[in-house]
Amino acid sequence: MDCKTALKETDGDLTRAVDYLRKKGLAAAIKRSGRQTQEGIVGSYIHGGGKIGVLIEVNCETDFVARNSEFQGLVKDLAMQIAGSNPCPRYVGPENVPSEIIDKEREIFIAQARETKKPEHVIEKIAEGKVNKFLKEICLTEQTFIKDPDLTIKELVAQKISKIGENIQIRRFTRFQLGEGEA
Amino acid sequence: MDCKTALKETDGDLTRAVDYLRKKGLAAAIKRSGRQTQEGIVGSYIHGGGKIGVLIEVNCETDFVARNSEFQGLVKDLAMQIAGSNPCPRYVGPENVPSEIIDKEREIFIAQARETKKPEHVIEKIAEGKVNKFLKEICLTEQTFIKDPDLTIKELVAQKISKIGENIQIRRFTRFQLGEGEA
Repeated sequence: MDCKTALKETDGDLTRAVDYLRKKGLAAAIKRSGRQTQEGIVGSYIHGGGKIGVLIEVNCETDFVARNSEFQGLVKDLAMQIAGSNPCPRYVGPENVPSEIIDKEREIFIAQARETKKPEHVIEKIAEGKVNKFLKEICLTEQTFIKDPDLTIKELVAQKISKIGENIQIRRFTRFQLGEGEA
Repeated sequence: MDCKTALKETDGDLTRAVDYLRKKGLAAAIKRSGRQTQEGIVGSYIHGGGKIGVLIEVNCETDFVARNSEFQGLVKDLAMQIAGSNPCPRYVGPENVPSEIIDKEREIFIAQARETKKPEHVIEKIAEGKVNKFLKEICLTEQTFIKDPDLTIKELVAQKISKIGENIQIRRFTRFQLGEGEA
């Protein structure tokens, strides 16, 4: 009822409705709808005595698999991969890269290719090839596995899925390099 | 010279000038200006066999101090503090909280206080008190140290600075809780 009133008062704007309810002290009535049911583990890897650190969450379907040494070994291998990559991946997979970023790179690659004065259909092919190369550089799943250069990370995960018999998803990761980036 | 041309071509817009230079294949000419000189360590803490993980960077002035066990103990204590806090801190200190976020909370607190029908100067005081409480909840430096409730984290760091004799800065941290947040 309070929610209905709040939406009415704010012309159906959900964000403003939540603010309205908070102002009225009714925020507790609103339950967060996050997906809290996934299993898996959060793992870390510290390289060089603290020069580089990686935090990673990998999900699976059951707590049983989360405690499996094969699964835990995969998480450690992925964390080491991220720590050791240069340039380091910025996204889990191509599906996680915002389309604005891909569009902007494509535009730059097309402009670069035009400088070659080649025909337009060749330019498009060159640019598309460069976009794919760019995605390979910034996406973890597209990288070559450092410990086995015959595999990509995507293939490594697929192998583990078929071996363990449960779906496995790399959820997210963060990499800190000592002293990098903004102050 | 290329940079000058680029700025001219793009009416002095720095972001567009960089894109212009990249398009012309001259991106390599632009050096990144990040501060790479800081010392310190990146540390991690994994709680509950992988249910919660924290990654933290703490800076100091020399590599000598970075290898000091007192400094490393502080980093571990801070990582454990972040893992154990509920709600967990979102920012290092009040100076890292975007002013839009503080302004929005203040507005909500003022509206809440107005419901009490108290005089305006009292309402302002109540709201300011609530803003400070909000900052204490979301900022690591304002929290009470779990291992010694007589100290805030800011005071803990200040103690270590005077003991070790070098400036110490908590640079950044990330906390992953298994299955939380967006899918």
